[in-house]
Amino acid sequence: MAPDASIAPLSVVRIAVDCMGGDHGASVTLPACHSFLAKHPQAELLLVGSAEALAPAQGWARCTPVIATEVVTMDDPIEVALRKKRDSSMRVAINQLKSGAHACISAGNTGALMALSRFLLKTLDGIDRPAIATVLPNRLDGYTTVLDLGANVDCTPEHLLQFAIMGSALVAAVEGRDEPSVGLLNIGEEAIKGSDTIKRAGELLREAGDAGRIRFYGNVEGNDIFKGTVDIVVCDGFVGNVLLKTSEGLASMLSDFIKQEFTRSLLSKAAALVALPVLNRFKRRVDPRRYNGAALLGLRGLVFKSHGSADAFAFEQALARAYDAARNRLLDRVHERLGAAALSQPSDTQPDTQPGGAGAEQAA
Amino acid sequence: MAPDASIAPLSVVRIAVDCMGGDHGASVTLPACHSFLAKHPQAELLLVGSAEALAPAQGWARCTPVIATEVVTMDDPIEVALRKKRDSSMRVAINQLKSGAHACISAGNTGALMALSRFLLKTLDGIDRPAIATVLPNRLDGYTTVLDLGANVDCTPEHLLQFAIMGSALVAAVEGRDEPSVGLLNIGEEAIKGSDTIKRAGELLREAGDAGRIRFYGNVEGNDIFKGTVDIVVCDGFVGNVLLKTSEGLASMLSDFIKQEFTRSLLSKAAALVALPVLNRFKRRVDPRRYNGAALLGLRGLVFKSHGSADAFAFEQALARAYDAARNRLLDRVHERLGAAALSQPSDTQPDTQPGGAGAEQAA
Repeated sequence: MAPDASIAPLSVVRIAVDCMGGDHGASVTLPACHSFLAKHPQAELLLVGSAEALAPAQGWARCTPVIATEVVTMDDPIEVALRKKRDSSMRVAINQLKSGAHACISAGNTGALMALSRFLLKTLDGIDRPAIATVLPNRLDGYTTVLDLGANVDCTPEHLLQFAIMGSALVAAVEGRDEPSVGLLNIGEEAIKGSDTIKRAGELLREAGDAGRIRFYGNVEGNDIFKGTVDIVVCDGFVGNVLLKTSEGLASMLSDFIKQEFTRSLLSKAAALVALPVLNRFKRRVDPRRYNGAALLGLRGLVFKSHGSADAFAFEQALARAYDAARNRLLDRVHERLGAAALSQPSDTQPDTQPGGAGAEQAA
Repeated sequence: MAPDASIAPLSVVRIAVDCMGGDHGASVTLPACHSFLAKHPQAELLLVGSAEALAPAQGWARCTPVIATEVVTMDDPIEVALRKKRDSSMRVAINQLKSGAHACISAGNTGALMALSRFLLKTLDGIDRPAIATVLPNRLDGYTTVLDLGANVDCTPEHLLQFAIMGSALVAAVEGRDEPSVGLLNIGEEAIKGSDTIKRAGELLREAGDAGRIRFYGNVEGNDIFKGTVDIVVCDGFVGNVLLKTSEGLASMLSDFIKQEFTRSLLSKAAALVALPVLNRFKRRVDPRRYNGAALLGLRGLVFKSHGSADAFAFEQALARAYDAARNRLLDRVHERLGAAALSQPSDTQPDTQPGGAGAEQAA
């Protein structure tokens, strides 16, 4: 049995929503909240934003408006979010976690969200650094969770172990898989491959596997993400960020190439018309909106990040992920997996002086 | 003007072909050679393999058979290639570079090819470590050259600079672009992002740009590879290997999903029939066979690697790349760009003790 299999779900789940974040603000977040509430009778929402922006939600059941007068923009430097805009919807939303909210979600600037979350919430005992986890679709028509995606450019083996544990708890909570498998991203399956950090991480993951804290599969390679070889792929934030953006860039190029070919001539446009239902089914199958919602893991509170450009459908998916994580008590699951034999904190672990982590705002 | 723009092309190009390498050996390499020769009147081939395998090529014009009695298999450990099989077609082909061949090509095991090449040829002055470079298709219907792809898991800033210089010479020689642009793969465009190694590499690349040895664009991100933002993307071998395999895995998943959707029902099969010319045009556009042929750079000789599973069409493309590199005197171009102000060899550069480089056999 998984270490956290006995953790009972919450009966009421309160989520603080930064309604002002993202490219579209309340025009996207409010309709998403409305639709989400209809499908989740056990959910309550704390809608954070300006009185004006929240006006359309007046009188909605299971909703409490929380007024915040400022907004962190997508371009605001981390310092502005941290030191200047003290009454931003993002900050106020995160602070709700200290007074009853079970999760918080924002489509705002990732770097600011990570920095504010670290500053306001602090990291969990046994976790040196928070990580960003997201899912990518795989051949099994499921999802592969990948972390870290850019919060930490240099990782020690211990950090990678912590990511594996947090990722396992996340997948258990959100996807309902009690014993998700973990792969260590490497450039070959054999244990001798990779840098010293990766080799040592492999040893730590194997030990954690033997101790029953995770289910360690072994090394995986880039293509295994899409094969669905494992539930969770662990890597440092530099590699994770590169692989995420490379995948996004490739998918976007291929989809544009298909569009170009189907609109090249009258004949190909006619073919497109015939093929439309098939093409639409393909499009739905790989629709990135379906798996919107990255988790900021390792904090003393559940923070989720929606893509900034999310539409209402996409934002609702992210809300649902945050809901599942909170309802299935992700934080308790992380605690449980960290266990009494808490993670080793080697002396060479350096304090992380970058509040947001370099490149954090690039991810998700 | 580019540092190497004045280098005149060779009038005769001799290429040593390991005819036994790859999944299919002579049944693929010989037809590819035949077709290649017809299109390249200035080429001469040294066909390396067993007498039996080379029999079909008897009497071919501009071909010289070179008999080798052994074959390095795809599964052979590097040690076997280096120490046991002294008369392998791969080894004999590489050795032709010491007696008149201008380039060598093999579809065999990458790790063995890199290890044998390093052992037999040694690295160029001013180059600490060889790198593997390949091309990926981009939105501009051109190619983006990426290196390193797995020969070096840990790279210093100086290594990344050397990759930039070698990559520039490669693109100038093979793609005919005199001043190709170089991007440093990072997780954000701003210079403050990334690890210390990346930041320092950015400084070195900028200096090399100012000195006219390369054209440095700045930092690029994963998605820029497919946008075609720059001609050359430089990264360490771990990241390069991950991004290559992730891309291969994603492209293969998406193409299988399209196939599945078009064969799901009678109706979608009918749609496929109508859409077939369009789908085939799309397929040709992203056909990985078209850009087969990775370069092993930094050695005292030009070694090219074809994908092991290449068919005759793909192997011929790799042959053509090797031909272009040799004809346009890639080695002299690298020398020219390294320049009098040879690359700094910092005291912290450690000797590389792994002949093949960890993970080298995974790339290409």
